[in-house]
Amino acid sequence: MESQTRNITYYIEGLKKCDLKILSEALTLIENQNTPFDFSMDLLQQAAALQKPSIRIGISGSPGVGKSTFINALGSHLLDRNKKLAVLAVDPSSELTKGSILGDKTRMGDLAIHALAYVRPSPSKAKLGGTAPFTKEAITLCEAAGFEIILIETVGVGQSETAVRQMVDVFCLLLLPGAGDDLQGIKKGIVELSDVFIINKADKERKALAEKSKRFYKEALHLQHAKSDSIVSSCSSLNSDDMPRIWEIIAQFITTQKLNDTFQNKRVKQDQLWLTQKKKDLILSEFYSAISNTNQDQSIFSQAQAIYNQIKNLGSKL
Amino acid sequence: MESQTRNITYYIEGLKKCDLKILSEALTLIENQNTPFDFSMDLLQQAAALQKPSIRIGISGSPGVGKSTFINALGSHLLDRNKKLAVLAVDPSSELTKGSILGDKTRMGDLAIHALAYVRPSPSKAKLGGTAPFTKEAITLCEAAGFEIILIETVGVGQSETAVRQMVDVFCLLLLPGAGDDLQGIKKGIVELSDVFIINKADKERKALAEKSKRFYKEALHLQHAKSDSIVSSCSSLNSDDMPRIWEIIAQFITTQKLNDTFQNKRVKQDQLWLTQKKKDLILSEFYSAISNTNQDQSIFSQAQAIYNQIKNLGSKL
Repeated sequence: MESQTRNITYYIEGLKKCDLKILSEALTLIENQNTPFDFSMDLLQQAAALQKPSIRIGISGSPGVGKSTFINALGSHLLDRNKKLAVLAVDPSSELTKGSILGDKTRMGDLAIHALAYVRPSPSKAKLGGTAPFTKEAITLCEAAGFEIILIETVGVGQSETAVRQMVDVFCLLLLPGAGDDLQGIKKGIVELSDVFIINKADKERKALAEKSKRFYKEALHLQHAKSDSIVSSCSSLNSDDMPRIWEIIAQFITTQKLNDTFQNKRVKQDQLWLTQKKKDLILSEFYSAISNTNQDQSIFSQAQAIYNQIKNLGSKL
Repeated sequence: MESQTRNITYYIEGLKKCDLKILSEALTLIENQNTPFDFSMDLLQQAAALQKPSIRIGISGSPGVGKSTFINALGSHLLDRNKKLAVLAVDPSSELTKGSILGDKTRMGDLAIHALAYVRPSPSKAKLGGTAPFTKEAITLCEAAGFEIILIETVGVGQSETAVRQMVDVFCLLLLPGAGDDLQGIKKGIVELSDVFIINKADKERKALAEKSKRFYKEALHLQHAKSDSIVSSCSSLNSDDMPRIWEIIAQFITTQKLNDTFQNKRVKQDQLWLTQKKKDLILSEFYSAISNTNQDQSIFSQAQAIYNQIKNLGSKL
């Protein structure tokens, strides 16, 4: 890897100048499993010292709900207000990855060509060997490069929702007008993760239905006591008229959280969660291969016992 | 703990006689985190030797879809056919736990009083200290006691779906008539986990809607190529007329899987998954506390580096 021969100063100086090429190189370096852990942590530690105040926003929703179009519309509004914006995708199955960045007729085309924006598709699974997507690390590097607003797109599948929730200041769930009229459609777990609910595609003939859905979700969320402060709104991502209002809702949520210290406390807690997860990952990667295979002819319970004895034996040597 | 002073023979003899009191004691023992791991594995190993052929069925669906009523109806049909039936709940938030077992006007009342049935609510989180729900272990003990059909109820929240999928021969997803008319309602991950889709509550005025939903889901699943062999049906759990047909669908799925060896191969793979997870759990519980706390005044990245150095240092001693 050419990039690994660079020293840390190269990356840090690049981040200070918000050099997008060097930012991308740094992200690739961190995501590469051959990069020495020490080197990554050194780089991230120095990058963390450069971090500026930021807002981290998670955007989730089922495939087809229009996440990319929404992010393009909201992002364009933020860029018009001279905010520096980074967009990260988390899932390999992300809509971001499916061509929006690569082609020209993309749904996120407005952002991809803007001087104040940085768009990063999610790393492919093959490249990573199935490990975590290093989202926390990516946020740190983007913030070190001076990006003020970080949008993180996640597809509503599996564990990525929970992981992203633990890295953002506000979590927005996009919904379709009329879909799931009795909240069956939204998994309970996702409802509890979300701060802001946005009925997307509230355009033309869907407008009335979206209003109905909005009222319904408001009531349903209230009844569920999912979150007393949850916010429901609707918008069309096809024109930019709705975006100032949507941004106002998100910004207001952040302001409230900052006033009552929730914002900072949440970030401290998120840091600890990241550290705990990292500790577990490191322990497993160090000790997992030290436990040898068991006799597959035996029942899984005797195999588990043999594994247990090996682990106890290793532990006693420490 | 009184039960821990019992020797393994006590439990094994109890299981051989299908003594439900002793089965419950054995389950409580396994779930108790103070039980020595060696003792649990010894017991399970001997129980595994008693296991008889069985069918393990996962039943999932959002809250409100009628899981308990469905399980009561399907279970009653199986009991009428003299099948020995065990019902296990996985999530602490399970409907099973919310009183169905305890009260008299329960939705699972028919099963709770039947001589051939055993119903086990999910262990409470408090009791377990947040660890895994020992579902695999519970299945092993129930099968050792001679139960031929194991129904495992899981609520559609978070990781329990995936965990249950990895322990059953067939995974059924219950749906409501009309809900989520564009598949937005079903998370992609859940669709891929499911073998049989059942539109529940297809009774009275909902019957026509359920038929419509059935046709819709059939087509949608086909289009998604989620599973080429996925099966969609509808039923009412309020009367028992539909249950022979539903059972026929499930039994046919099992028969097909047995004929092409999928059944046995899946179980072998599931055993290996359980063993891998157990190995990880054991490694973490042995080594996690051996890594001392880091200086919280430093950035999480320097803390991660300090943890990494400790782990490497421990690893070098092995």
